[in-house]
Amino acid sequence: MINQEYKDMLSGKSVIRELSEYATARGKEIGYENVFDFSLGNPSVPAPKEFTDEMVHLLLEKDPMEIHGYTPSLGNPVYKKKIAESLNRRFGMNYGPEHIFPTTGAAGAIAHALRAVTRPSDEVMIFAPYFSEYIPYIKQTGVDIKIVPADTEAFQINFEAFESMITDKTAAVLINTPNNPSGVAYTTQTLERLGKVLAERSEAYGHNIFLISDEPYREIVFDNADAPYVSKFYKHTLSCYSFSKALSLPGERIGYVAVNPECEDAEYIVPMCGQISRGIGHNCPPSIIQQAVAEVCDLTSDLSVYETNMNIIYDTLMELGFTCVRPGGTFYIFPKALEESSIEFCNKAKKYDLIFVPGDGFGAPGFFRMAYCIDTDKVKRAMDRLREFVANEYL
Amino acid sequence: MINQEYKDMLSGKSVIRELSEYATARGKEIGYENVFDFSLGNPSVPAPKEFTDEMVHLLLEKDPMEIHGYTPSLGNPVYKKKIAESLNRRFGMNYGPEHIFPTTGAAGAIAHALRAVTRPSDEVMIFAPYFSEYIPYIKQTGVDIKIVPADTEAFQINFEAFESMITDKTAAVLINTPNNPSGVAYTTQTLERLGKVLAERSEAYGHNIFLISDEPYREIVFDNADAPYVSKFYKHTLSCYSFSKALSLPGERIGYVAVNPECEDAEYIVPMCGQISRGIGHNCPPSIIQQAVAEVCDLTSDLSVYETNMNIIYDTLMELGFTCVRPGGTFYIFPKALEESSIEFCNKAKKYDLIFVPGDGFGAPGFFRMAYCIDTDKVKRAMDRLREFVANEYL
Repeated sequence: MINQEYKDMLSGKSVIRELSEYATARGKEIGYENVFDFSLGNPSVPAPKEFTDEMVHLLLEKDPMEIHGYTPSLGNPVYKKKIAESLNRRFGMNYGPEHIFPTTGAAGAIAHALRAVTRPSDEVMIFAPYFSEYIPYIKQTGVDIKIVPADTEAFQINFEAFESMITDKTAAVLINTPNNPSGVAYTTQTLERLGKVLAERSEAYGHNIFLISDEPYREIVFDNADAPYVSKFYKHTLSCYSFSKALSLPGERIGYVAVNPECEDAEYIVPMCGQISRGIGHNCPPSIIQQAVAEVCDLTSDLSVYETNMNIIYDTLMELGFTCVRPGGTFYIFPKALEESSIEFCNKAKKYDLIFVPGDGFGAPGFFRMAYCIDTDKVKRAMDRLREFVANEYL
Repeated sequence: MINQEYKDMLSGKSVIRELSEYATARGKEIGYENVFDFSLGNPSVPAPKEFTDEMVHLLLEKDPMEIHGYTPSLGNPVYKKKIAESLNRRFGMNYGPEHIFPTTGAAGAIAHALRAVTRPSDEVMIFAPYFSEYIPYIKQTGVDIKIVPADTEAFQINFEAFESMITDKTAAVLINTPNNPSGVAYTTQTLERLGKVLAERSEAYGHNIFLISDEPYREIVFDNADAPYVSKFYKHTLSCYSFSKALSLPGERIGYVAVNPECEDAEYIVPMCGQISRGIGHNCPPSIIQQAVAEVCDLTSDLSVYETNMNIIYDTLMELGFTCVRPGGTFYIFPKALEESSIEFCNKAKKYDLIFVPGDGFGAPGFFRMAYCIDTDKVKRAMDRLREFVANEYL
């Protein structure tokens, strides 16, 4: 018999996917250039040429047995070393290769990190607004989820709620900064306070609470952002990274878990990830991709378009009287809808071929997400359409 | 706190890995050409040139956004279609693209297949000798494992034991043919009988028992082997495949689950795998590898060396009086040791720089595994050493 639990999940359709499918279908009717699709967070700039050159170099110049052979179960040693060196140089950390576990993107990193520091009866806390996939990611490890309501003023952390909700069952806290969907980066002040609360509660409860930091947007940070490196603020931190966004390689499934060398049992966590991999069927990210990314891990795609787009959208939103926290990074912005129900708001926007995602699925009803990883020219045209939508429906 | 269960796994060292590390260390002492390392099942022939050409073509000629972008959550449509067509053409099946779920190798395929058709209180049965990784693969899904003792005469299925052990808690049976470690392919007769037993018991228990068929060695079959396509013999079959061995791409993590179109709830299983992926952090195998393998999925590396090596080893074993089932495929052979304890036997062999793996970890004590994915010249030299070892220790 098939597993009913997974079958039941099929009826819970993804709102983002439905909107994206709607946009595609609508594009076929009226031309895709006329649909202003802000639904999907897919990078809109190519991978750097250096990555392509490195891939071709490996394929043409190196021994295929070495390029395509099994990597050691804890990952390609060169990849691990280069990542550690890059993080140390950029963030003043002290990682060795033994603290880096290569994973299939951030999803793979979170799958390992969660299993390494939780047991079935534990609780994991997340903060709204959160990446909607966190719910199945966490649920399927068998632990309970506690959702801390949003700080809707600044999209930092609602510490009052957090401190009242954390208990001795809390094994780990999962954060995402810069954040999908809000676009906001947690400030130094926020991270200092988070570290302080976690340290105090760890002591009070007699076990260390782990911080799992999901940071695939770490390199997409805008001029004025204070986007500090999370692991500097709390030693029991596992940093989960993906090159999907910064190198525009989402399909190639390449990332890592970086274990703070000062955290509890730091020396066991990467080897434990190797054990976790066996049960969930990973066995490392693709070999050739590890080898190529090792050589370009300090580079990024040309990410400037995201800031350009953000400024155009933010200025227009301000002009139109929206309430909105200015993003410090990512390619998302998360304004307040112009009516109570953001689902209604997004439905009305669809009539103007503006495709926005209601905040409900991110744990923040009343807001909506725009993913602006699209051409700047299209963003500009979309702003005219947004003006028309607001004027017709809300003025 | 870290998860003690995974930490405890660290003390259970892999015998194969220890032997392989010993061989490497010994190679540094006396020259690797003088260590006859039969421990690891790593392909010893390069990927076909057509694969490399296709990779370079994609990198140089195609849009990087398309090559490296997210694949749809149920996999690249071209890959799915080509796999289905290839299986239909070669094995007279009737798969559509909707029955193919791309995975990160066979490990990823088994991780999805197991979760799709079992629930936590269920039992999964495996047959000795079995690939030792099956134990953590299965255990970590939360179900119980029942191990059917080996048919040590022919390494087919010990039906007497199987039929006495199967119960109404049996949700799935996991087989591996051609088999690691025995090298034996299940015959038509074996698979017919297996299908019959499963059908009868499914009816008796009122639920369909699923057959999970792990077949990464399917294309490494020797002249005289009867190596039929498992899914033809029982409709509730999920076939798990990897291109690791046939295309020599073990590090690139590319394979699939093929769902028999006639099995119970066939239309749900691939979408359910998409849901399972969320919790275990997969999100599809690497995009560029899916696209390249789609174009070469009917090819294989030049696999002839494995049969050449098998014949040399088998003939020598016969000459020396070993008891051994002649392999029908793979790059393994699994002779009976010349003393009761195969651990002792393998320890003595080490003194002659012959690195064999005791059968105990494969659920068949008294036998030992040789992985002959090495140069034929070295195999020949190893046979002289084997003659010396046997003459000195056992004659």
